[in-house]
Amino acid sequence: MNSALEKQLAFIKEIDKLKYIQRKTRLFNSDRHENDAEHSWHLAMMAIVLSGHSNEDVDLLKVIKMLLIHDIVEIDAGDTFLFDTTKNHSNTEEELKAAERIFGLLPEDQAKELIAVWEEFEAGETKEAKFAKTMDRFEPMLQNASNDGGTWREFDVPYETVIEKKQKMKEGSVAVWAYAREMVDKYYGKK
Amino acid sequence: MNSALEKQLAFIKEIDKLKYIQRKTRLFNSDRHENDAEHSWHLAMMAIVLSGHSNEDVDLLKVIKMLLIHDIVEIDAGDTFLFDTTKNHSNTEEELKAAERIFGLLPEDQAKELIAVWEEFEAGETKEAKFAKTMDRFEPMLQNASNDGGTWREFDVPYETVIEKKQKMKEGSVAVWAYAREMVDKYYGKK
Repeated sequence: MNSALEKQLAFIKEIDKLKYIQRKTRLFNSDRHENDAEHSWHLAMMAIVLSGHSNEDVDLLKVIKMLLIHDIVEIDAGDTFLFDTTKNHSNTEEELKAAERIFGLLPEDQAKELIAVWEEFEAGETKEAKFAKTMDRFEPMLQNASNDGGTWREFDVPYETVIEKKQKMKEGSVAVWAYAREMVDKYYGKK
Repeated sequence: MNSALEKQLAFIKEIDKLKYIQRKTRLFNSDRHENDAEHSWHLAMMAIVLSGHSNEDVDLLKVIKMLLIHDIVEIDAGDTFLFDTTKNHSNTEEELKAAERIFGLLPEDQAKELIAVWEEFEAGETKEAKFAKTMDRFEPMLQNASNDGGTWREFDVPYETVIEKKQKMKEGSVAVWAYAREMVDKYYGKK
């Protein structure tokens, strides 16, 4: 028996659980909540078609890896909502434990590589992480705009909070942020 | 207004529909059907962790692009089930029209690139297409094995048909096919 393959398949089965993790945001023009697997697929597709708008040239394969795996820790740690006023979304101890358990199902070299990719994304300091995070921040804004405000309306999020939480997008793409900000301004009647 | 970005966003919104396309197969150890977006995410993750088992070194970014986009044509053309006895799953006129309409929402250079990637996947002749197709064939087998036969049982698929439809997997990965075949043999009591 091929023991590397056995470990890889244990990981592949485990991450199926991402399909059950429901996000606060809903599909475009829809009441149906999005799940983390769908979200991860959509972000990877966005990176493929929008990478030309990145402020800097990026390693697209690394960006896609970040986006495909970035929410896997939520299998153990649960979804944290950006506008949650009680829990801060940061690289928590709980998320690190989750990364070690879930990626730890893989052969050691692969586990190390994917944990490092996830940590790079979380830190948000490299050009790839900045662009990947811009995609992660942008998708729910597009969904909200298509759903008459979506979570902005549902959770009474003030205009200033949206701008404050989202403006780091400009670190990944000035062009995408300009578009996104205009969308927010329009919804909140600021222009 | 940024007209390339507008076109890209029209595409990004359109492909949200992939989340509504239900496959015949079900999630691991579950009655819940998988949708095409979840499936595409899972295949890309499989390619990341299993690419070392490819018969030949592959361009992983291209493999991932193939897997993320391979079912987008089903937005117009619908899901074709591998074991469907009435409709052949091949690169039909209907699917080509779908590719031209949906990828055609993008700026022309990107539309051309993604249609070419999709056609390369469908043709199944390059090493990247062979490995990507091996992933696409393998995932439902893992799901079926976890669901007491899954679609093999549900649609009374004979052992010989499974082997006949799946054995091209060895063109992408001899190691993955060896594992998959053992799984089929075990389910059908062949060893």
